[in-house]
Amino acid sequence: MPQKDYEAISHAKRLQRGGNIPREWTFDPKIHQGIDLLDVPITCGLLTDAEIDITSKFDATSLLKGLKAGIWSVEQVTTAFCKRAAIAQQLVNCLTEIFFNEAIERARRLDKQRYACTDVKALPPLFGLPVSLKDIFAVKGHDTSTGLACYVNEPAEEHSAIAAMLLDLGAILYCKTNVPQSVMTGDSHNNVFGRTLNPRNVSFTAGGSTGGEGALLALRGSVLGVGTDIAGSIRVPSVCNGTYGMRPSVGLAPHNGTRELTVPGTDGIRSTVGPMATTLRDCALFLKTIMKAGTWRYDTSVISLPWRDAKPKMRLRIGLVEDDGVYTPVPPVRRVMKKAAALLRTSENVEIVPLALPNVKTYYADLLSYFTLSGSEHYLEQFGRTGEPVVPSLAALGLLSKPAATLKSFFDLNVRRAEAARTYLRLFLDNSLDAILMPAAPHTALPWDTWTNATYTALWNYLDYPAVVIPMDVVTDSDSMDDPNNAKYGPSDMELYRQYTGPEHYKGLPIAVQVIGYRHQDEELIAAAEILDSIINGKS
Amino acid sequence: MPQKDYEAISHAKRLQRGGNIPREWTFDPKIHQGIDLLDVPITCGLLTDAEIDITSKFDATSLLKGLKAGIWSVEQVTTAFCKRAAIAQQLVNCLTEIFFNEAIERARRLDKQRYACTDVKALPPLFGLPVSLKDIFAVKGHDTSTGLACYVNEPAEEHSAIAAMLLDLGAILYCKTNVPQSVMTGDSHNNVFGRTLNPRNVSFTAGGSTGGEGALLALRGSVLGVGTDIAGSIRVPSVCNGTYGMRPSVGLAPHNGTRELTVPGTDGIRSTVGPMATTLRDCALFLKTIMKAGTWRYDTSVISLPWRDAKPKMRLRIGLVEDDGVYTPVPPVRRVMKKAAALLRTSENVEIVPLALPNVKTYYADLLSYFTLSGSEHYLEQFGRTGEPVVPSLAALGLLSKPAATLKSFFDLNVRRAEAARTYLRLFLDNSLDAILMPAAPHTALPWDTWTNATYTALWNYLDYPAVVIPMDVVTDSDSMDDPNNAKYGPSDMELYRQYTGPEHYKGLPIAVQVIGYRHQDEELIAAAEILDSIINGKS
Repeated sequence: MPQKDYEAISHAKRLQRGGNIPREWTFDPKIHQGIDLLDVPITCGLLTDAEIDITSKFDATSLLKGLKAGIWSVEQVTTAFCKRAAIAQQLVNCLTEIFFNEAIERARRLDKQRYACTDVKALPPLFGLPVSLKDIFAVKGHDTSTGLACYVNEPAEEHSAIAAMLLDLGAILYCKTNVPQSVMTGDSHNNVFGRTLNPRNVSFTAGGSTGGEGALLALRGSVLGVGTDIAGSIRVPSVCNGTYGMRPSVGLAPHNGTRELTVPGTDGIRSTVGPMATTLRDCALFLKTIMKAGTWRYDTSVISLPWRDAKPKMRLRIGLVEDDGVYTPVPPVRRVMKKAAALLRTSENVEIVPLALPNVKTYYADLLSYFTLSGSEHYLEQFGRTGEPVVPSLAALGLLSKPAATLKSFFDLNVRRAEAARTYLRLFLDNSLDAILMPAAPHTALPWDTWTNATYTALWNYLDYPAVVIPMDVVTDSDSMDDPNNAKYGPSDMELYRQYTGPEHYKGLPIAVQVIGYRHQDEELIAAAEILDSIINGKS
Repeated sequence: MPQKDYEAISHAKRLQRGGNIPREWTFDPKIHQGIDLLDVPITCGLLTDAEIDITSKFDATSLLKGLKAGIWSVEQVTTAFCKRAAIAQQLVNCLTEIFFNEAIERARRLDKQRYACTDVKALPPLFGLPVSLKDIFAVKGHDTSTGLACYVNEPAEEHSAIAAMLLDLGAILYCKTNVPQSVMTGDSHNNVFGRTLNPRNVSFTAGGSTGGEGALLALRGSVLGVGTDIAGSIRVPSVCNGTYGMRPSVGLAPHNGTRELTVPGTDGIRSTVGPMATTLRDCALFLKTIMKAGTWRYDTSVISLPWRDAKPKMRLRIGLVEDDGVYTPVPPVRRVMKKAAALLRTSENVEIVPLALPNVKTYYADLLSYFTLSGSEHYLEQFGRTGEPVVPSLAALGLLSKPAATLKSFFDLNVRRAEAARTYLRLFLDNSLDAILMPAAPHTALPWDTWTNATYTALWNYLDYPAVVIPMDVVTDSDSMDDPNNAKYGPSDMELYRQYTGPEHYKGLPIAVQVIGYRHQDEELIAAAEILDSIINGKS
């Protein structure tokens, strides 16, 4: 019998969380099935015009300029995002830890620092910028429950490395965001905080595992969020919420001080820390600022490298991947990929190389074997401490039914992974690729608890290649449902393919592409992705 | 029953190797116990005065200048080193694969290239430089037997990454060098090629596992060698032979294409590729040139980073470690450390911080557990294929008696290693260290088959910190034997300590210090080590 029941813990925790939202920032959100909530923060009447401006019109890069120039006070900006995050929380249940008071107090201190400062250049690089964090990052004084009841009411004694760095760099931390039970599924849903809804359509997933972050960003309750990605956990919510998101190469941003739910010391596929934002340049801003700040002082597991400014290429060679050979993209995704390819083909700066990705199915199977090296015992033990049940999206994954592996089978996985690395290096070299462009997923956000595959994103975790998600369009009335028999890759492909039932249900959901670079060449990837973004999103 | 007996294989292989030395370069070396062979290459009459000059007076950096300027032809330099390597081989049995013909042919081609070249700057960075390789690196067309009979007569079909890079960078490959059976011991001795002798005293080990390289360098049959280091395999032979040697952080130089004798896919402590040379600047030359050349194109396992030129520090803070808390340095080592500390204390550019290294014994035990994860079965199976016995130095290590570990115990090792990393980061940060200075070993070269501990070097493999060995002195008549009871750390310390029996046996053997930097800050380490080298070796 568990010492304390998860329901009692969850009830108390949610009450506590609610109490951290000032009463005057609360309202009745009137949520019903299928509703699009994106405009509610503006129409609900809680934000002043200035707060609507601050939170709606700028990305982190411009906000920082304004903050340093004194166009707004840090307090003003922080309060605006705290308020809008409070609204977002009431709409889609995206937050876990709320510490607005602490944030606003710090904002006031930073304002004093700015008034005393004669040289704007002496201000820290992220001066006054509100940054939201996925729940798994420890922030001193607050829980790192990671959605598990057994870890509620254990305030962190130390900051995670990324929290410490962000604070040292001048940022404001004000909230943490929701994750799935186990941090492994495509639905940010757990027994402590419940489910995060997709603000564009509450019947759909907001994605996972960094789904609270995605929903918060979509509602502009944050302008820059930090997540982690081990199979797509930054990129899936980026697809679901129409945000930019980057999975950097493992080790470039510090990962220490996160709550790990796997068996301690587990190696193999490593989770990587990365940004989610409303522009690509903000993703770059995050990685650049972190990499310039000496990550080694904060984290023993990093590859501590100074950011290099990548020289812009005169002409990019882009490998164009229509599908991954496992799942056929649904019609709106195919439409957007065609549009992207056509736009790139008109550009003098881009050369398109049609490309097929070898062995994705096999590699994905091996990735899942890495994820289940220790079986399910450790997860179930943690759930069992408070008697909490497995959430539907985790049950649907099937990861918990795998037996533990042996050391020999782990080494065998390493052998195959090393061979895969050679295969893909040859793919890059033989085709002289600067980057690969492909769908970020074969579909858009899906209805609750049905996002159970991640081949499009997880391949790049298996290979440890950096990848960026670029939102490009939304589902429109023209995106009719297709005959499921047009799914090219067999029964499980057909099953996924038929999930797309046309614009009646899916209209307005974002469609995203993914740009992938070579391992540890994250700067080159960002430089290439910026060019592609400007072309396919008509920003040039 | 083995298919073919190792003795027959070894006999044929040694005959073949001998046949690759031109008859006119052979002589009768007259080796006897205790003899110092260092001068024999000069006195034996086989080298011309020009060849003696080329091989004796320059380091790789100056040779390269001369080669590019056309002071010597590539053929002249290559022939000189081939000849001297042939002499070294006859003296101390340091070579495994000999391909002088191929090297001299390539040298002629490079000479033609130079004559056709109007701009010296357009020549590749290692133009015409002879470089020797540890046997484990595959060189196309030659065996990578790694001292095991079962792999003899299997010429490599592809270059190892480092061989391919060196050739692309303009270097000349001309021989490979001897290693211990298993590549894990301090004596480069195996059943195929026999034992490499220490040229300063043939009764002593030349070190291992890159011992053939060390002996070859000591005799100046090479000016730049490439080894690997997983517990001290570059640094131990550097100590034994009085050469400079560097263990870079894992992944900076490419490691693919080496013969691994461990179970394929083994992870944990990784071997790292690094240089051995006669000057520190040549170690820097190697790493810099390799890192500037895009290692990612050659090797999927690298951290492919461009070399950064480290800014010289106005004042270095150096942690001074007298011993590692496990083994007491013998009198000549203590004398040299005292001398180094005294010299550094007189320098305005150095601040000394006395330092104790925490937990070395525990960490070393864990390192050995990493090395024996898969037990001994795989090694013994490879030996068994040709019926070869275990060499004495490998038997003495005790590694082969360990049982295989479980996945869980591997992950437990990872947990403890991560904690060790945090402990040592705090050591670096709390003391604001730029580098650590300590003995490279608690002793000099030891008599055959008695170098069975590597705590001084292996700690830095466990932590993955870069480390450089700097030779500083040799044992002199004044270095009397000490009372074994002065060993500070118990019975096994006393046992090792009493091995030093005074100058009668040890006179002339090199004594070296070790400089250690922080992980991935190899450029900063080299910059610091260059300053320390100039002070302690009076080069400033």
